[in-house]
Amino acid sequence: MEQDIRFMKEALRQAALAAGEGEVPVGAVITKGDEIVAVGRNRRETGKSALAHAELEAIAEACRRLGGWRLWECTLYVTLEPCPMCAGAIINARIPRLVFGAKDGKAGSAGSVVDLFSLPYNHRPEVVTGVLEEECAGLLQAFFAALREKRKTQPKRWKKPQA
Amino acid sequence: MEQDIRFMKEALRQAALAAGEGEVPVGAVITKGDEIVAVGRNRRETGKSALAHAELEAIAEACRRLGGWRLWECTLYVTLEPCPMCAGAIINARIPRLVFGAKDGKAGSAGSVVDLFSLPYNHRPEVVTGVLEEECAGLLQAFFAALREKRKTQPKRWKKPQA
Repeated sequence: MEQDIRFMKEALRQAALAAGEGEVPVGAVITKGDEIVAVGRNRRETGKSALAHAELEAIAEACRRLGGWRLWECTLYVTLEPCPMCAGAIINARIPRLVFGAKDGKAGSAGSVVDLFSLPYNHRPEVVTGVLEEECAGLLQAFFAALREKRKTQPKRWKKPQA
Repeated sequence: MEQDIRFMKEALRQAALAAGEGEVPVGAVITKGDEIVAVGRNRRETGKSALAHAELEAIAEACRRLGGWRLWECTLYVTLEPCPMCAGAIINARIPRLVFGAKDGKAGSAGSVVDLFSLPYNHRPEVVTGVLEEECAGLLQAFFAALREKRKTQPKRWKKPQA
């Protein structure tokens, strides 16, 4: 548990970096034994890619560093419950252990919208939830509150042409 | 339908390229209007990445070419029913239309193991199935038959050390 908190803190640091870039703050870390082998953060807007979620960035880096597609000795830490794409990537990479912070009622696919890991795919990771949950959720809430405030005070850049 | 067959034939060509590289033959094509904007093929082994499915390769290329993460005017053609990762990526990229060939009883997530598109995520594509189904399934069956044959006649490269 102590180690889970330590690695989730690094995932939170990645999420904070994403927030600083104007991205929804989600961060991820992949470890093997005691070591971090990859980190990732949400880069959907800056990377202009639907695939640039924190988990996929980290899984891509871990596969590159470890030289194969099976991450069967790794743990993935992520600040927010994975979406179906990222939960599916965890299955495809055979990651045996997932630790996440905050739940995601809108897209979370490790229990919220659906639990993909309870379905008969060919891999089922152990899942630990709620590690630093308040900090993970707090970062997201602060980001969206700031975004709403900004939208209130700033004029819209684009206006629909009148017919 | 005629156009669907035309684009599925290109996806099949991508799948055949994958087979030639020793990869499970799955191919994908993304179109916008009448034009192909991206292609992809399974590169899991050669790319040494759990993420290198045909659909993700094509979505990544389409986002790069079209300059954004929303592929809301595109159709994705793929020879095999998407796995949860790829079905999730279709949701994330807001792709409005999916056309696939063969069903995948083991990992298919557009109706076989689960229908992710029937769940309350924030996007739901139109799905067309069974386009050139026999050709798509046949390519996979031939690949696995050849693989079984090869395994029968070739000695194993690695033997577990005796205790």
